Amino acid sequence: MLCQAANQMAIKVVTLDPLESCPASGIAYHHVVGSFDDGDTVHEFAKRCGVLTVEIEHVDAVSLEKLELLGIDCQPKASTIRIIQDKYLQKVHFSQHGIPLPDFMEIDNLAHVEKAGELFGYPLMIKSKRLAYDGRGNAVAYTKEELPSVVTALGGFDHGLYVGRWMPFVKVEELSVIVARARDKSVSCFPVVETIHKDNICHIVEAPASVLLNEVAPRPHNSGHHKIESCYTSQCEQHLQAILGLPLGDPSLKSPAAIMYNILGEDEGEPGFYLAHQLIGKALNIPGASVHWYDKPEMRKLRKMGHITIVGPSKNIVNARLDSLLEGKTPGSHGVSQ
Amino acid sequence: MLCQAANQMAIKVVTLDPLESCPASGIAYHHVVGSFDDGDTVHEFAKRCGVLTVEIEHVDAVSLEKLELLGIDCQPKASTIRIIQDKYLQKVHFSQHGIPLPDFMEIDNLAHVEKAGELFGYPLMIKSKRLAYDGRGNAVAYTKEELPSVVTALGGFDHGLYVGRWMPFVKVEELSVIVARARDKSVSCFPVVETIHKDNICHIVEAPASVLLNEVAPRPHNSGHHKIESCYTSQCEQHLQAILGLPLGDPSLKSPAAIMYNILGEDEGEPGFYLAHQLIGKALNIPGASVHWYDKPEMRKLRKMGHITIVGPSKNIVNARLDSLLEGKTPGSHGVSQ
Repeated sequence: MLCQAANQMAIKVVTLDPLESCPASGIAYHHVVGSFDDGDTVHEFAKRCGVLTVEIEHVDAVSLEKLELLGIDCQPKASTIRIIQDKYLQKVHFSQHGIPLPDFMEIDNLAHVEKAGELFGYPLMIKSKRLAYDGRGNAVAYTKEELPSVVTALGGFDHGLYVGRWMPFVKVEELSVIVARARDKSVSCFPVVETIHKDNICHIVEAPASVLLNEVAPRPHNSGHHKIESCYTSQCEQHLQAILGLPLGDPSLKSPAAIMYNILGEDEGEPGFYLAHQLIGKALNIPGASVHWYDKPEMRKLRKMGHITIVGPSKNIVNARLDSLLEGKTPGSHGVSQ
Repeated sequence: MLCQAANQMAIKVVTLDPLESCPASGIAYHHVVGSFDDGDTVHEFAKRCGVLTVEIEHVDAVSLEKLELLGIDCQPKASTIRIIQDKYLQKVHFSQHGIPLPDFMEIDNLAHVEKAGELFGYPLMIKSKRLAYDGRGNAVAYTKEELPSVVTALGGFDHGLYVGRWMPFVKVEELSVIVARARDKSVSCFPVVETIHKDNICHIVEAPASVLLNEVAPRPHNSGHHKIESCYTSQCEQHLQAILGLPLGDPSLKSPAAIMYNILGEDEGEPGFYLAHQLIGKALNIPGASVHWYDKPEMRKLRKMGHITIVGPSKNIVNARLDSLLEGKTPGSHGVSQ
């Protein structure tokens, strides 16, 4: 989507990905096959770039720091990536800056985690510090007895673990706030009208009161994809304008209501493609619906394969359109954001 | 822009253009360098395509007819292209179908054109039947004495000429109506709220009465580019959905007002790029403005190098935003459509 936003202004994006047929490969100005975990590869790649950015924070921060010393312009900075990619460090950082967070605690051994259980109670959420996304890298212990097996399932203490106090977030609202900061430090915030839905139940939030910070990503985020159709400036356009030193765009809504539905793999391989194809066919008959297909070479269960954004004149109308899209589907863990 | 619309849905577009570095080359799934006037080239190219379409009607219609006989799916049909690419044949066709047109007449020799001058009066508009676009291929004779030189300037009678009765269209409104027809023959019409402006003077048309047909293009049209930002479905998305047999999208406006400004080359080469760059810089500071840069390898005076669309909550607001974009610019022949 970053390439798509760039292509409109003929901004040349060169991409680095281990897969030759990754989604961006066909639409990037040039695609380089290689690992973004490998210092030499990233260095060779960076030499071609006026500005280096990321779409995923799980990159080698040490390599980025070296590149910055060589004068390569990394946006966001390596120091930001280093903090953000370790969810424990991220929480320590925000905590030090007075941001309200759910309680959390580092755990290095069984005594630690048992202590955390006593302090926070059960269920207890145990989390990987690194490489966690979309709920992966998290596991719940419902009793003290489950602690050792949950820790093992997450790769053991050496993997880097911490615990967070269990928040009954399926009952309350989880908000996604998308903010851009330009190189001149000006800040632009997209309207906070979104809600994460679970089981296709819609929790409308009109005026959010105080909320706890969960996590921050220094890049375009899945929950903001609907801005392509619903806002004057999409989050990818805003990201590009921010990192390139261009003025930030108008982030306000141009459509009164919008809802975004992630197309998750419902099966492996061909049967999965068939089901997704059927859903897309339905979406094309729904007014105000836009289909985004990521063209990932492999279909897997629960993998994000694309998304559908529905915009329209009111929340009721877009909700009704979403209902008609999902008619006959079993309510599942499909991510819907509004 | 067709590739950009296709990329969102991962529809694979293969392009054919004589230029290796043509605008589409970087974002098409695959780009083939070759002439679309050459039968063999078009044939080789067409074998790779599920559906063959055009972005310009000045292609070899005879080649397309041959391809259709070989079972290649051309959208629009070769028979449509053949009529449309000859503006005289086009007018004959519409006239035979009862469509109101300005008076016109084929001219084969000086006696013909003098006769036309007597019938239609002066100024007399003399036009090339083929390869005419953006006002090119048209010339005006203000007196009978000017006729021979105007005919010569247009390439002579052998080039294929006709005359049209002079219409004082700079004083009245010229409308652009964008319509899509799906393969199942269903028709979808974009809202007719556009006006062609001249000298940056805005002529708002609220309820068009009877208008004469000027010309038809069987493809996405420059006057419809603002739909990318202003309508639920863009004209390129609609073109793709039409030619691929998908349902047509919702063509209605999602933004109350929109205006589109063509970035025309103001000078040759680097000075031209510099002026365009300055304009783009201004546009990025205007709320609701989207910049499209076509990445044409060569800058030429009056060449369409890109466009800027401004959307907003009312016509007054988008007009004021356009005024601020163009502040300090000499009013020229920049095409603005709303």
